[in-house]
Amino acid sequence: MKVYADNAATTRTSDAAIQAMVECMKTDFGNPSSLYTLGQHARETLEKARADIAQAIGALPKEILFTSGGSEADNQALRSAADIGRRQGKMHIISTAFEHHAVLHTLEALKKEGFEVTLLDVHENGVVSAREVENAIREDTCLVSVMYANNEIGTIQPIAEIGEVCRAHGVLFHTDAVQAVGHVRIDVGTEKIDMLSASAHKFHGPKGIGFLYARKGVRLSNLIHGGAQERGKRAGTENVAAIVGMAVALQDALAALDGNTRHITEMRDRLIRGLESIPHSALNGDRTQRLPGNVNFCFEGIEGESLLLLLDQKGISASSGSACTSGSLDPSHVLLAIGRVHDVAHGSLRLSLGEDITEEQVDYMVDSVRETVEYLRSFSPVWRDLMTGKAQFIL
Amino acid sequence: MKVYADNAATTRTSDAAIQAMVECMKTDFGNPSSLYTLGQHARETLEKARADIAQAIGALPKEILFTSGGSEADNQALRSAADIGRRQGKMHIISTAFEHHAVLHTLEALKKEGFEVTLLDVHENGVVSAREVENAIREDTCLVSVMYANNEIGTIQPIAEIGEVCRAHGVLFHTDAVQAVGHVRIDVGTEKIDMLSASAHKFHGPKGIGFLYARKGVRLSNLIHGGAQERGKRAGTENVAAIVGMAVALQDALAALDGNTRHITEMRDRLIRGLESIPHSALNGDRTQRLPGNVNFCFEGIEGESLLLLLDQKGISASSGSACTSGSLDPSHVLLAIGRVHDVAHGSLRLSLGEDITEEQVDYMVDSVRETVEYLRSFSPVWRDLMTGKAQFIL
Repeated sequence: MKVYADNAATTRTSDAAIQAMVECMKTDFGNPSSLYTLGQHARETLEKARADIAQAIGALPKEILFTSGGSEADNQALRSAADIGRRQGKMHIISTAFEHHAVLHTLEALKKEGFEVTLLDVHENGVVSAREVENAIREDTCLVSVMYANNEIGTIQPIAEIGEVCRAHGVLFHTDAVQAVGHVRIDVGTEKIDMLSASAHKFHGPKGIGFLYARKGVRLSNLIHGGAQERGKRAGTENVAAIVGMAVALQDALAALDGNTRHITEMRDRLIRGLESIPHSALNGDRTQRLPGNVNFCFEGIEGESLLLLLDQKGISASSGSACTSGSLDPSHVLLAIGRVHDVAHGSLRLSLGEDITEEQVDYMVDSVRETVEYLRSFSPVWRDLMTGKAQFIL
Repeated sequence: MKVYADNAATTRTSDAAIQAMVECMKTDFGNPSSLYTLGQHARETLEKARADIAQAIGALPKEILFTSGGSEADNQALRSAADIGRRQGKMHIISTAFEHHAVLHTLEALKKEGFEVTLLDVHENGVVSAREVENAIREDTCLVSVMYANNEIGTIQPIAEIGEVCRAHGVLFHTDAVQAVGHVRIDVGTEKIDMLSASAHKFHGPKGIGFLYARKGVRLSNLIHGGAQERGKRAGTENVAAIVGMAVALQDALAALDGNTRHITEMRDRLIRGLESIPHSALNGDRTQRLPGNVNFCFEGIEGESLLLLLDQKGISASSGSACTSGSLDPSHVLLAIGRVHDVAHGSLRLSLGEDITEEQVDYMVDSVRETVEYLRSFSPVWRDLMTGKAQFIL
């Protein structure tokens, strides 16, 4: 049996998105900045996609800036807010300890430029408290950046509450919504979001395209200088085909959202129940306040990498956490942030489900994980120490 | 008759590139950073494309960094060289007055950070002199950035000579080769190029993808912080499908280069001869030291925009210069740099030919341009003044 259970890393580009892209590349290849008919038609196609995407999150078309993906959008959002802050003499930024590296590493770069960064605790359940955001806000705070849903453990943050707090204090609020867009309903107006990052390939759109929503009035800084594209805020010929593919994928995702959410949530909970029956295992992150498709477990006494390789042999594509840091020997900063100790964090498994997941696949995954965990433990020195009482079980 | 004569703005994505992209999106959609088979296969596909692209310009695979396009590559190249320079206390950069805005605007940003920029004269023929580059080099010069071929007037620069000069003086040499890659043979080794920017959609690859070549040992700075992709120098899930499409397009372009160059050059020269027969017109840029497909003319007494709109009605897609600045009322900085006065620079026309251009299309363009120029002049007050001697002809 084959199971692709790494939809948080990337999703299969939908046939509808591919078809839209091919049509665009074949017949609508003009440069949207050109005056002639072919170019103007590409411009219309581009602006139609922008309007569709804006509508999908309750924004205005001119509040949508197309980027090469979520990382670029995160970088530009933080860089822009920092520039606004600097001009106002506000050099303090609030974020969380378990943001994506596109946020954390940009914050590191900003620290070198003199910004002070407060990283909020995400607690054992992987959820930030809006009250703690409020308590952290200072006179010189220029930005709060809290991800919509975590990419490893899938926990959804109280975005509307945080938005409320930020708006009340006049502080810009950015959310990295790369894992959320297309998976939960988002309305930037009611949730009082000032900036939001998204990536198409997380919702069956193509790779290499994303967008940054920036509320009207929020002045963006250029990450890429050059031509006058994207209202002068992002140089480079617009990737029209990918933008159209993204718009199609997002509209399809939202049209099917309610049914998909019901089904995926049911499968997720079945998978969680199955994996919980493995001894000395534990779900990472809040049980209900999480993305419909996200399951993340720790298993004591094993190495996550070996688990993944053996699951791959059984036809299951899974990950230990973020694909962006694979190859790193460090344990996940997300799992450390929710209080998992190093040893336990090393034995983590993320299974992220798509719409087409079946009960049979879920049961197959439970059986496969159980067998593999037992097999790995059978020759694990750590497990032997635990079993002989030389070491203490944590989970 | 339909003639697409704006290949310098963008080219039609080739069927072979589209097919390769579709196949990749359908069957090879895994995240290349993932451990499982699907991800590893995507990694192999990605690295195969990197090796093919490297070979096409005489580089090593690890010297190729994928970006979202030429503008991002230019920005990262200049930013990286500036950071290297700053660390060495070298804050002087040499470039030219007619670079693409992706270079010029990045230089503007660097000037605000304390860098001093010398922009070299490009002379009447639109060609920089290597001797003048050498004369401009100072003890504190950290970078020379000279484009391979100009995007408006197509003039090709003496890159190997400039490379020689830079290497001899130990100064980094970057070339924006967005208009040249896939159109002329480039070897970064023999031409002593340290960094080179390219964009796929200029050689029948997809939009939204490009690459930065950076010679082994040249330390790149991140423009986009985040995940560990691209050796940690460019965060964001790799756009595998577009990268594969780019590799296919580049290999196809180089395989057909000799025949295409012969044909396009012949058509270009036929077009130049035809347009020269229009009174008070002039070719912009050197007659022979230019890209095979580039034709750029000024016509006295007319507005370039009106010319374009009327040519569009005749089925001809053309531009007045760079698509990236369309909508701007300023005359081209490139034409001003080669000494065209404002009035004349306003009446410019760029026709950039593709491989499929025919003699019939060339003759149709000559006839159409002649008719349209005569028509526009018939009610142009500027032309009346020239004809009645109230103003002096320049061309």
